[in-house]
Amino acid sequence: MMPESPIRKLVPYAEEAKSRGIKVHHLNIGQPDIETPEVALNAIRNFNQKVVEYSHSAGILSYRKKLTTYYKKHNIHITSDDIIIAAGASEAILFAMQSCLDPGDEIIIPEPFYANYNGFAINAGVNVKSIFSSIESGFALPAIADFEKAISSKTKAILICNPNNPTGYLYSKEELEILEELVKKHDLYLISDEVYREFCYDGKPHYSSMYLKKIENNVILIDSVSKRYSACGVRIGCMISKNKEVMDTALKFAQARLSPPTFGQVAAEAAVDTPDSYFEEVSNEYIARRNVVVEGINNIDGAFCPNPSGAFYVVAKLPIDNSDTFCRWLLEDFSYENETVMLAPASGFYSTEGRGLDEVRISYVLNCDDLRSSIKCLDEALKVYPGRTR
Amino acid sequence: MMPESPIRKLVPYAEEAKSRGIKVHHLNIGQPDIETPEVALNAIRNFNQKVVEYSHSAGILSYRKKLTTYYKKHNIHITSDDIIIAAGASEAILFAMQSCLDPGDEIIIPEPFYANYNGFAINAGVNVKSIFSSIESGFALPAIADFEKAISSKTKAILICNPNNPTGYLYSKEELEILEELVKKHDLYLISDEVYREFCYDGKPHYSSMYLKKIENNVILIDSVSKRYSACGVRIGCMISKNKEVMDTALKFAQARLSPPTFGQVAAEAAVDTPDSYFEEVSNEYIARRNVVVEGINNIDGAFCPNPSGAFYVVAKLPIDNSDTFCRWLLEDFSYENETVMLAPASGFYSTEGRGLDEVRISYVLNCDDLRSSIKCLDEALKVYPGRTR
Repeated sequence: MMPESPIRKLVPYAEEAKSRGIKVHHLNIGQPDIETPEVALNAIRNFNQKVVEYSHSAGILSYRKKLTTYYKKHNIHITSDDIIIAAGASEAILFAMQSCLDPGDEIIIPEPFYANYNGFAINAGVNVKSIFSSIESGFALPAIADFEKAISSKTKAILICNPNNPTGYLYSKEELEILEELVKKHDLYLISDEVYREFCYDGKPHYSSMYLKKIENNVILIDSVSKRYSACGVRIGCMISKNKEVMDTALKFAQARLSPPTFGQVAAEAAVDTPDSYFEEVSNEYIARRNVVVEGINNIDGAFCPNPSGAFYVVAKLPIDNSDTFCRWLLEDFSYENETVMLAPASGFYSTEGRGLDEVRISYVLNCDDLRSSIKCLDEALKVYPGRTR
Repeated sequence: MMPESPIRKLVPYAEEAKSRGIKVHHLNIGQPDIETPEVALNAIRNFNQKVVEYSHSAGILSYRKKLTTYYKKHNIHITSDDIIIAAGASEAILFAMQSCLDPGDEIIIPEPFYANYNGFAINAGVNVKSIFSSIESGFALPAIADFEKAISSKTKAILICNPNNPTGYLYSKEELEILEELVKKHDLYLISDEVYREFCYDGKPHYSSMYLKKIENNVILIDSVSKRYSACGVRIGCMISKNKEVMDTALKFAQARLSPPTFGQVAAEAAVDTPDSYFEEVSNEYIARRNVVVEGINNIDGAFCPNPSGAFYVVAKLPIDNSDTFCRWLLEDFSYENETVMLAPASGFYSTEGRGLDEVRISYVLNCDDLRSSIKCLDEALKVYPGRTR
């Protein structure tokens, strides 16, 4: 049975709040307000083919070739044959799971993790084994002993998201090299979701799993243009691997759905020419936003938030009994100066029952002023929330 | 394990033939050469949003509302809540299977059938039970006794494609009413793939499964703009049902992949305004093409082809030992006046081993002149094919 998305189950309450004239700050979703690069939109406006044909099931060849230049800039050296274009990272993750694991196999994912991984695992018939990463450590990679404990004869892969959704944590080179040894020792696949690659802050570089030379044949890179170019609706992602056997299998799944979207590929191909200045501006904006959120939350009595170096999410610990109840209460029973906030209860990002009950995920996808108002709302809310714990 | 597509496995041989300077007529694929309506392409050229956002997981509301007007014209009365927009009929069929059947359940499909149904069934963990429809009957609906024989306690659904790919057969009102009684008697789902709805010839109307009032809650309509508007690359289809429970479940699968492609939806919404004259012209063109192919094949000694009233495919019986061998031979070892044809071996459309060995699927997606040359090629080929049987 497909679980309900932790991000969406509160939508009816938000709609109801809006119908009462309340302004709802949406900190629950990963839809950035940043503009899509002009170069991508112009490509669509100049679309001049007369028939919108199926593309190659692995994606338009000129796009795949151009993508290799993007990765080369990031020191990832691949050919167009190492890429399968998918309908977003969503489809790429599904292809990766279906190609690397058989139904009944196990995949290890540090929790909290992106809730939709559960859905893809269900689709692929794969069982998720989660291992715990703690807010106190800022959600760093769990100890190797915890991985070892979780590995069984059914374990075929480890999945990481770097930088991480929902925690914003950016894995270090050292952490990835630890994973490299583990993956090598047990001959597993490492599925590395790097869709937030461009969102690394504080001068910390992104260290891709594709850099791990000892396990070159075990790494599956998942990527997407959704966040990179603020183009979530184009539904273009990809799966990359140097493992020919995995790619051959993935291509069969890709062929069954015929082709990825043509328009999206045209926009994404053009987007490769996005100037570096775009990313610099976006990065500066997100750093400012993160600082507003992290400082704001840490100034709230009883609340705690790590200061992560990537993506545009934080998981914060609040003095609350139950984050599901709290997030719903914010929409149903609370407002401050006619405003409230919509947050994602962190419980939905843990697969272990009972975890994340005093945590929420906050997406800092609004401008700094709205984020300040949101934090103010949250502060006032915690002063009067009946389920406050400390 | 995903089976290889019968349409694609010969691609390397076609490439090789082309590299030897041979002109290959592609009668193997369902990619029409008809132009996409201007109104759809203009909508894309005028795309004026600054951020390409996720749409609603069920699709852009304005598009779903507009789609209801398209269906109303076809006497199908639905609301926007009865529609989930998907990345092509491919995704819609997968959602339908996942929502109506549990892993291990059975779905009955008359064979020959669209080969990718196998892939979706594997994805959904569902077992396909095929029942035989014969070329001698023009691939009419199999006898009700054959369905009854195939139904077990595991059977949850029947899947039909109307008009049919690969056979072109258009099911009659009477045949659908027979299915209605059967579906009602056993309380099954009827998944009805009607992506070729606009392609009905000889004055025969299309009778939708949505007209079957006695099983209104059991019918899942699968549709797509790919063929209707010759826009295969936009990847926009949909799943339609009045069954709220099925739609609620399907929405969860839809949410797991976030949203269908935004650009494609914009084009598809505009395409609803395509003038009727477009379909008339297209229809006349396809009738002319079908006539070239059907007459042409029936004039070949030892060959037989029914004269179907829908879609743009025929399945033809040829005097050959093995259609896989023959289709490959056409590309590897044969040419006539420096031309050859690429056909789809029909064996790939049967799930029963050994069937379709003397049959091929022909897509009449080329202009009449090229089709005439193709038939001439085929005629000449059969004169010299070493595996000729009669």
